Amino acid sequence: MEKVVNLCKRRGFIFPSAELYGGFRSTYDYGPLGVLLLRNVKDAWWRSMVQLRDDVVGLDAAILSSPRIWEASGHLANFTDPLVDCRQCHERWRADKIDGVCPSCGSTDLTEPRAFNLMFKTHAGPVEDEATVCYLRPETAQGMFVNFLQVLQTTRKKPPFGIAQVGKSFRNEITPQNFVFRTREFEQMELEFFVPPAEADQWFAYWTAERLRWYRELGIPEDRLRLRQHEPEELAHYAKATADVEFLFPWGWDELEGIANRTDYDLKAHSAASGEKLEVFDPQTQERYVPWVIEPAAGATRTMMAFLLAAYQEDEVGGERRTVLRLHPRLAPYQVAVLPLSKHERLVPLAREVLGLLQPVAMCDFDVTQSIGRRYRRQDEVGTPLCVTVDFESLEDRAVTIRDRDTTEQVRVAIDQLVPEVCRRLFA
Amino acid sequence: MEKVVNLCKRRGFIFPSAELYGGFRSTYDYGPLGVLLLRNVKDAWWRSMVQLRDDVVGLDAAILSSPRIWEASGHLANFTDPLVDCRQCHERWRADKIDGVCPSCGSTDLTEPRAFNLMFKTHAGPVEDEATVCYLRPETAQGMFVNFLQVLQTTRKKPPFGIAQVGKSFRNEITPQNFVFRTREFEQMELEFFVPPAEADQWFAYWTAERLRWYRELGIPEDRLRLRQHEPEELAHYAKATADVEFLFPWGWDELEGIANRTDYDLKAHSAASGEKLEVFDPQTQERYVPWVIEPAAGATRTMMAFLLAAYQEDEVGGERRTVLRLHPRLAPYQVAVLPLSKHERLVPLAREVLGLLQPVAMCDFDVTQSIGRRYRRQDEVGTPLCVTVDFESLEDRAVTIRDRDTTEQVRVAIDQLVPEVCRRLFA
Repeated sequence: MEKVVNLCKRRGFIFPSAELYGGFRSTYDYGPLGVLLLRNVKDAWWRSMVQLRDDVVGLDAAILSSPRIWEASGHLANFTDPLVDCRQCHERWRADKIDGVCPSCGSTDLTEPRAFNLMFKTHAGPVEDEATVCYLRPETAQGMFVNFLQVLQTTRKKPPFGIAQVGKSFRNEITPQNFVFRTREFEQMELEFFVPPAEADQWFAYWTAERLRWYRELGIPEDRLRLRQHEPEELAHYAKATADVEFLFPWGWDELEGIANRTDYDLKAHSAASGEKLEVFDPQTQERYVPWVIEPAAGATRTMMAFLLAAYQEDEVGGERRTVLRLHPRLAPYQVAVLPLSKHERLVPLAREVLGLLQPVAMCDFDVTQSIGRRYRRQDEVGTPLCVTVDFESLEDRAVTIRDRDTTEQVRVAIDQLVPEVCRRLFA
Repeated sequence: MEKVVNLCKRRGFIFPSAELYGGFRSTYDYGPLGVLLLRNVKDAWWRSMVQLRDDVVGLDAAILSSPRIWEASGHLANFTDPLVDCRQCHERWRADKIDGVCPSCGSTDLTEPRAFNLMFKTHAGPVEDEATVCYLRPETAQGMFVNFLQVLQTTRKKPPFGIAQVGKSFRNEITPQNFVFRTREFEQMELEFFVPPAEADQWFAYWTAERLRWYRELGIPEDRLRLRQHEPEELAHYAKATADVEFLFPWGWDELEGIANRTDYDLKAHSAASGEKLEVFDPQTQERYVPWVIEPAAGATRTMMAFLLAAYQEDEVGGERRTVLRLHPRLAPYQVAVLPLSKHERLVPLAREVLGLLQPVAMCDFDVTQSIGRRYRRQDEVGTPLCVTVDFESLEDRAVTIRDRDTTEQVRVAIDQLVPEVCRRLFA
């Protein structure tokens, strides 16, 4: 864990926010490599959940949101943690995490637990009053429920169909922890899949299998991935069944994604609160009904962290230790590094020409400093699957060397065959 | 304008947020087509500004941000509008937008103008006190300045180089207006490009030309695009020069993007506030210096709106009026629609096979309802560049018809040539 956190900082994946000012309340900024990796995680999800299917459409709802949504969803009343205040030092703690003793000053003079709402509250408009209160959404899911009718009307989809969203959510966690695993600002990838009630169990099984497949396909090894069914007493009030996709983190098994059968709870709640019927017509029975919802809800930032942890390896190449991130080519920040053998004035222009050929099809790094061996190591360490080296022979034969991150094998390829060869290796 | 707003609502580009509850304070949700268009706008920017260059790296900083950043940047003190209260009806107004008369009740009994800060304020942590105050960032730019050293250290870039970011920002505008042109929650695409001071003017000219080229290349016509240089008295306190890229909106010329020469104002401000030197080393002069910054800062949501307005046309095809969005293929929500000629049980499976071939390379719609003519019109209206029709002949000759949105010309293509032909037409 420590090695990966250090790598993240040293190579520009993740920085503590406002580090210049000593950091800020467990927020993080994604640096040049982190932003590429995080984009790739989200794009891989979108590709799998939206682009490659014709039964799912996308949505991008606002973060600033109406209290009426959270009143109807139950978040205003129930999305709380029990907190106690220490009467001695005035620190505030989660009641379920301490044993009647203040961890700060040791006092046992604590208040009774009070419900503390986890939603961030602010005001939209010039006056700070009840009329302008709004919340930063604590989940993207409600956006899909309140836009259900609009999506139905504009796309003419019918169950089974889904609405997918990727975006930031905010929860005022009392104890953010484990690096970017639990942070107040985080990114979600959620699908709400609307189905006829009779098909709900079958679709729950389908999405559970489908989501496990996604993690495996992108490189999470079998022995660090498991599915954990919630016990009946563990289920949220809206859920008939929930299964967590868990990853073996350095601190133990923990959740990457929850797949829940939310029944018709949300659509009915918003229907009751708004007075609008959130129903669909079944042509077979000639009746209207409220669909049930199967929800695979993943965390983008913690998923990114799992991919990093799973990819991190130390091995030996030619008698030398190296660190290598065995990231899937779709996830790697850079897919290709173009490396002129030296800074020689005849090599660099040809290397730039090669770079120009590859940039339209892959995210490329270009590095001219230090020895070629050092540069291979640097690319291995950030997971770049392919290095393309331009040497003095290239000037004669218009060919370059492709070096594979995992096998370290090198093959010679003609420049005019380079783009298809790189695409084949990366995306085939 | 009204036609485009109606199209946006009717076809699922943009919905008022929480419409189920009567809307919410000028926030908007991007529906199934809008989310695709907005993603494409942002991806086209990222491709042009990050992927196709090797002198720009990306960043994704947190939205929840430290007051110390906004203190140093001057936003806490200066990012304000002058507001007056009406003593009669207690409404609040922008002092510079009314003429001493309350637009609501007509009273002239108004308070003196007071500075109202446009940043959204909230609290991160269990206690609402000074220690937990934080702000939703009002711009992404400061993220690049406060991470300047970290990016320098982890990427070893040297000026001239840039840091690019795409993400949400929040400003508590008193008068949101013109649909998604000015909203409290919006999305920015910003580049901070760090240069040696002596090269600042030259890079300002470069980025002005480069950004105009981007809009033109993606389909904004010459006569609706212009560059407006700010007058000296109009310049922000940090800027030595600013040029706005303006689009001819239905309400007149208005800003899509500002390109500013921010000098060394921001790096020096953060350096002074943090005590850290934000400098680089010049190997030629052997001296350290603070780079100047050229900033092309665009609004993603208003740019999306400009692309929609510029693409909207009504023309005539075969004696019939049609609405067509002549969106660039990189921007169109769907690149391809796959249309079986009818719902016939032999056509649909072949059409699905064709869909499966195309989905990995393009965002595809699949539509089986109503006549083929009606379906062409529906795709024209949302800007789909290519329709691929599967008919009864396809069952015999394994070929399909490609229909072009703009020319309405149709050509027959063998299914095993379809993917390269579609890619050539869309992306060549």
